[in-house]
Amino acid sequence: MRYIKLTLAYDGTNYHGWQLQAPEHGPTIQGVLEDKLQLLTKQPVRVQGAGRTDAGVHALGQVASFATESRIPAERFPLALNSVLPPEIVALEAGDVSAEFNARFSAVRKTYRYHIYHAQQPSPFWYRYAWHVPNKLDLAAMEEGARLLTGTHDFRSFCASGSPVKNFVRTVDACRVEREGNIIQISITADGFLYNMVRIIVGTLVEMGKGKRDPGEMPGIINSRTRVAAGTTAPPQGLFLVSVEY
Amino acid sequence: MRYIKLTLAYDGTNYHGWQLQAPEHGPTIQGVLEDKLQLLTKQPVRVQGAGRTDAGVHALGQVASFATESRIPAERFPLALNSVLPPEIVALEAGDVSAEFNARFSAVRKTYRYHIYHAQQPSPFWYRYAWHVPNKLDLAAMEEGARLLTGTHDFRSFCASGSPVKNFVRTVDACRVEREGNIIQISITADGFLYNMVRIIVGTLVEMGKGKRDPGEMPGIINSRTRVAAGTTAPPQGLFLVSVEY
Repeated sequence: MRYIKLTLAYDGTNYHGWQLQAPEHGPTIQGVLEDKLQLLTKQPVRVQGAGRTDAGVHALGQVASFATESRIPAERFPLALNSVLPPEIVALEAGDVSAEFNARFSAVRKTYRYHIYHAQQPSPFWYRYAWHVPNKLDLAAMEEGARLLTGTHDFRSFCASGSPVKNFVRTVDACRVEREGNIIQISITADGFLYNMVRIIVGTLVEMGKGKRDPGEMPGIINSRTRVAAGTTAPPQGLFLVSVEY
Repeated sequence: MRYIKLTLAYDGTNYHGWQLQAPEHGPTIQGVLEDKLQLLTKQPVRVQGAGRTDAGVHALGQVASFATESRIPAERFPLALNSVLPPEIVALEAGDVSAEFNARFSAVRKTYRYHIYHAQQPSPFWYRYAWHVPNKLDLAAMEEGARLLTGTHDFRSFCASGSPVKNFVRTVDACRVEREGNIIQISITADGFLYNMVRIIVGTLVEMGKGKRDPGEMPGIINSRTRVAAGTTAPPQGLFLVSVEY
């Protein structure tokens, strides 16, 4: 048996998220990838993804691992896969790894980025990749809120209710707010993410940018450990899984 | 009667170009825009577009003009239109103009930009907006070819055959090749463009970049005044109408 690590980029607009679902829910990235790997290797393949991105969420550097008895050299997988995958899913790199490697459980750090399209009118090129916010935004307030979020905390306030997780403690290494033209990027690096964590953080930071909340409230929101203390959940299409560290 | 100048951005992927067509050919940008203007003004509206972009071609700053008896203030049109237009078409600005203004015939200069996605594997985010060229490209050769193209010339070699145009002389003010990460941008500003002119110029410059042609051939290609002397026509999806000057 051989073990392969695969790095992928995808546009999640037309997919029902990463994770395999019953076919009536529509196509998923994992489902399409497994089909095409089976086509190439002539064996059923089960892949493990580093981050189970939701419907409409994208990836610049998702990582997947799988076991196979195929003799296709690892470095051939990207070109072979890209010749059969739909254009919304692209294999960027592949390499051999040990049997112990698991794309999900071996990950030590992940970076997500969220795009806000900040202009009066929306953009025909960004509506699938950003949240359109026409309101005036105080970037300094958003930066201050982001700064107060970093560190090791119980992030229960930033976890969608109903999540089966028991341990809500995560370490946010960096949370940065940057503007480039009409795009405001919020990049978050952490050792792990709770369900909807980035989107709830972004929703809360935008409320601080709009002046609806003071950034100084951030420690109180964290300490309350209750979802209702934080802001709304930003829409999925602005979110990108950027990279996974091992 | 009032006369309105409207600036638009659109993603042309799912449209059969700018110009109105018989309905069986599929939707066009002009057709959708006229429908929505009629919905808002409650009168039939005929718009004139500055550049008749082809199927799959995009716009960052297309300009359209129309006459109307509606009393809607010009500056209200963008928000009103964007509430009824599909997300692929966005009205950016509108203003009153004189009866003499015609978006097409009053234009004195236009800028088009072409995107090449230059990387080994394609991108799920650029396949609708760029031409994927994985080959090695000599940027200096492309820049030299672009430089030799500027000026006033008979550009018949860069016009798709069958065009009804009689005067092929155009003045190219600037033709620039720039790289930013994996994207190579070719921007061309001219007083007018022949049919497929930018796409044939890009196809020719890419052949120079690949080393299939020498950039020094450019004056000879121009002087031959025959389409077959130039390179292939680059695919439509990389092309953007950037701006129109009056």
